[in-house]
Amino acid sequence: MSLTIQQAIDTIIAAVPGAPFPETVDTIKAGDATQEITEIIVSFLVTGEAIEQAIQQGANLIITHEPTFYNHLDKTDWLKNHRVYQAKRRLIEENQIVIWRFHDYLHSVPPDSTVMGMLHELNWESNASPEQPYLSQIQPLSLLELGQWVKQRLGLKTIRIVGDLTLPCERIAILPGFPPAEFQMNCLGDAGADVLITGEIHEWETSEYVRDANHLGQKKGLIVIGHAASEEPGLRWIIPWLEERLPAVAIHFVSSGSPFYYL
Amino acid sequence: MSLTIQQAIDTIIAAVPGAPFPETVDTIKAGDATQEITEIIVSFLVTGEAIEQAIQQGANLIITHEPTFYNHLDKTDWLKNHRVYQAKRRLIEENQIVIWRFHDYLHSVPPDSTVMGMLHELNWESNASPEQPYLSQIQPLSLLELGQWVKQRLGLKTIRIVGDLTLPCERIAILPGFPPAEFQMNCLGDAGADVLITGEIHEWETSEYVRDANHLGQKKGLIVIGHAASEEPGLRWIIPWLEERLPAVAIHFVSSGSPFYYL
Repeated sequence: MSLTIQQAIDTIIAAVPGAPFPETVDTIKAGDATQEITEIIVSFLVTGEAIEQAIQQGANLIITHEPTFYNHLDKTDWLKNHRVYQAKRRLIEENQIVIWRFHDYLHSVPPDSTVMGMLHELNWESNASPEQPYLSQIQPLSLLELGQWVKQRLGLKTIRIVGDLTLPCERIAILPGFPPAEFQMNCLGDAGADVLITGEIHEWETSEYVRDANHLGQKKGLIVIGHAASEEPGLRWIIPWLEERLPAVAIHFVSSGSPFYYL
Repeated sequence: MSLTIQQAIDTIIAAVPGAPFPETVDTIKAGDATQEITEIIVSFLVTGEAIEQAIQQGANLIITHEPTFYNHLDKTDWLKNHRVYQAKRRLIEENQIVIWRFHDYLHSVPPDSTVMGMLHELNWESNASPEQPYLSQIQPLSLLELGQWVKQRLGLKTIRIVGDLTLPCERIAILPGFPPAEFQMNCLGDAGADVLITGEIHEWETSEYVRDANHLGQKKGLIVIGHAASEEPGLRWIIPWLEERLPAVAIHFVSSGSPFYYL
């Protein structure tokens, strides 16, 4: 039974509570969705590796969590004369690949798969609060030990820590990606977490809140692991859910890794 | 001759081209500006160390570049019940310190002191374009050598690099702080820089542009040194300008350093 890419996307959207959303960044970014679907690549970003993997695999749909063209709304007017943009679009179009973003809808399938994916990778599925899975209670670890655990379990090269490395951590908030800074800080304030593990921050927001907290006698910790590192477990976690909705289509995950060299 | 804090602030603002601005984040964030000024602390952020230094020094004005309360507009409604906020405000008020932000006005004194400060620290004052000082031409260095140079000259612990470490870099763009990502990327596109040195990025914007550029055969580099690290040279650089306007007031710089431990 043949299925177009558009039909596959519609099938996914139909399974999301409250969908379709009138306003969403989850649109087709490139390619012709009327063609028959072959296979699917799921990736955090449309990296060169993800496109190459799609070509090798014969997959013609890349489902990506983040933008394709370096800005949240994937606006391209300002990019028209950039050779990077021209070459990326050409590569996608010449290979008849369709890019569809799965961001707002992904986060709207409860429980949030990016939190569940992290809990799974950290082996904390039974430590999470059933009502608020982004809050976990663990056997006390120092902030340094906790950082080592996160780094080792997720296979990361480098993470950033703010706070006293000897701080005992029991109540852990996990906020993958880059949620609003107010939410990050409220986890440490109202929600009473000892430490927040998150993907990305602004250097005038949550990291300074934590630095001030420590200076002012309130012990708090922050572990910043990188945006991709914090959400890729969730993209792996959602694949069985996608497979259930699209049983006839093979789905492959391609990691975006990290572009950063730490010197 | 006595001078109030408000008069000192007004004197600074009067020296900025086009000032006062109808809309600006450069407002008083805490304290009573009608009191007579003693001494001034200039800092990137109002860290605990900056407040303590003010107390020890008997300074009652902290001129800060970034927010005091962890968000760009220094809104505090959402922070009311946060002990960190309460304790920080109490510490400032009990010590009768005034906090004034010097952000929009600082960047409006030409040439931008944050660019000039970086050029000075990197010993590139004669390499910069007179018309566009954020663009420099240097004797070729590999991207790795350039990173080492920046790290050593600025005395940094850790920096992040994206791109081929052997890339020869001659045309360098310097954008301190966290300018709009479009501007960061335009330096590498339209402006033709080989490498951008900047303070902070979003992990779905400039770093991915550079990763894609390299993948698609266009050699570009990115060096991310941290927001404070990139703007503190400019805060040091502006002090003689401030001293000229306020010759009777002692002005001291306090570094904000970095809150990050890299694991």
